[in-house]
Amino acid sequence: MSTFREVGERDAIRKIMGVIRPSPDNGPLDDAAIVNTEGKLAICSDGLTFDRHMTPTMTYEQFGWMAGAVNFSDLASMGARPTGILASLMMPPDLDIDDICDIMDGIDRCAEFCDTYVIGGDTKEGTGSVVCTAIGNMEDRKPMTRHGANPGDMIAVTGELGSPAAGWHSMNNGLGLEEAEYSLNVPVPRVNEGMAMAGSGAVTSCMDLSDGLAEAAWAICNASHVGMEIRREFLPMGYGVEEVHESLGVPLDDLLLYWGGEYELVFTFRKDMIKQLYGNRVPFTIIGQVTNGDRPTVSDIDGTEVLRHGIY
Amino acid sequence: MSTFREVGERDAIRKIMGVIRPSPDNGPLDDAAIVNTEGKLAICSDGLTFDRHMTPTMTYEQFGWMAGAVNFSDLASMGARPTGILASLMMPPDLDIDDICDIMDGIDRCAEFCDTYVIGGDTKEGTGSVVCTAIGNMEDRKPMTRHGANPGDMIAVTGELGSPAAGWHSMNNGLGLEEAEYSLNVPVPRVNEGMAMAGSGAVTSCMDLSDGLAEAAWAICNASHVGMEIRREFLPMGYGVEEVHESLGVPLDDLLLYWGGEYELVFTFRKDMIKQLYGNRVPFTIIGQVTNGDRPTVSDIDGTEVLRHGIY
Repeated sequence: MSTFREVGERDAIRKIMGVIRPSPDNGPLDDAAIVNTEGKLAICSDGLTFDRHMTPTMTYEQFGWMAGAVNFSDLASMGARPTGILASLMMPPDLDIDDICDIMDGIDRCAEFCDTYVIGGDTKEGTGSVVCTAIGNMEDRKPMTRHGANPGDMIAVTGELGSPAAGWHSMNNGLGLEEAEYSLNVPVPRVNEGMAMAGSGAVTSCMDLSDGLAEAAWAICNASHVGMEIRREFLPMGYGVEEVHESLGVPLDDLLLYWGGEYELVFTFRKDMIKQLYGNRVPFTIIGQVTNGDRPTVSDIDGTEVLRHGIY
Repeated sequence: MSTFREVGERDAIRKIMGVIRPSPDNGPLDDAAIVNTEGKLAICSDGLTFDRHMTPTMTYEQFGWMAGAVNFSDLASMGARPTGILASLMMPPDLDIDDICDIMDGIDRCAEFCDTYVIGGDTKEGTGSVVCTAIGNMEDRKPMTRHGANPGDMIAVTGELGSPAAGWHSMNNGLGLEEAEYSLNVPVPRVNEGMAMAGSGAVTSCMDLSDGLAEAAWAICNASHVGMEIRREFLPMGYGVEEVHESLGVPLDDLLLYWGGEYELVFTFRKDMIKQLYGNRVPFTIIGQVTNGDRPTVSDIDGTEVLRHGIY
């Protein structure tokens, strides 16, 4: 046990950098990392803070994983193949150096899961935040954006919804829904799915659900100048959602529509190209259709509009 | 006057993004920015915190400029042409939204100075830190790293040393050395100089002086497995250095060798190619020579070794 302050910044950085797998393309870290690229590159940057993003049951390694995953998820939503990640750590001086190494290890494990490497960054004194920047190669795929949806397109999501939300309620109420809690602390970025989607040529717009399905639907509608009709009964429910709804009375919509911290992808695609999605083995569930409107609607099984506005 | 908390994150982001110049290559911001690249790309990420990096006289705009400049400086030390910057802001909820906009404006101005754009990032609640990630294109230039120095190479720096250090002492002691104080708050990244150096083909290693000349010399010696003989009387003294030394008794070495936050470049080059440096209009001052040793030395005019070890 020795704190960041005791170890000192220089030795701390040496120790922390010792945690990560060496990248085959980057030697000892220079002022900047060098990446070989061809064509279009995707790049994104997003940060987490201890205060806001560390759940009570989360390990430091899981915090690091999440700091990587939120960025790889953004790459996934564009259809990019990850080619590296940079990690900028701002750590409290009284934090144990081994905990900081665990954070870096978590980032590195997430990078490994995405078949890439930590290629740079820095560590300095701060109040407990990690900002990662992920880069990825589009190869021959067209980037999936928010602004390509057209009326008539189908709307779909990868995977199931609501598990991280259910995990959060489970954790706070001792429900012991382990799979849901794990999905909250260790989100899986849909990198392969994103590449398969972009590679299919069928997808017209895509976003990840890091701000929740309702927010994402609004963002695509605004950017694409379209409307959406989403059917609530089509939404695939993940681990623990029904249990949390039944045992705690949490409204299903709160779990499925308004919860940030979900890392599935929502996307629109050309109906006449659905075979290309199957051909590329994209796992998906259709949840609605793009319309000529100017905003998303979510309708109940009896046709009642259920989407709340402006309060999330 | 309205604080970040009062405005709310979503509207705050809209307002903050309204500050920056729109990039010709990036439309409305998607989950990730798309960059056209060819060949090698340089990428780096570095953060600043209010606590540690905001000087008493610094404006929020200058803080933003500095957050950009430290990253563009890292690109400069590789010889890359900046092609974009991402800014991840973690802002206290009680900070005025206009101050946050000023930070973003400062980043954007620094990007404009470097002939590029803010292409992404995010803003969320935090304790006051900005992490930027800059990317740049190597075009046909070979990246300048820390590990290419060879015995016999000359050692040089761009510009003059010690002004930011002098500015810091001036500020704290009311000396009123305006140019020095300005150089502390508004560092100039040596982007054009870096590109010219890399383009000359003469440079064998390079770093910026963000951790001070002594640290940089150690880093190049360690990475290149060489020694260095630096002559103290060759070090070019910047604005205010002599004044601070004389009026406050601060040792010259503290100002010239051990001060971080200097954004000149130190580099080594092949003696027989000095004409290519002149031909590329690289401004530089020779400060010493690379040796067969294993560490840097800095000798006084009478030959006394003056470099302190392990205490900075």
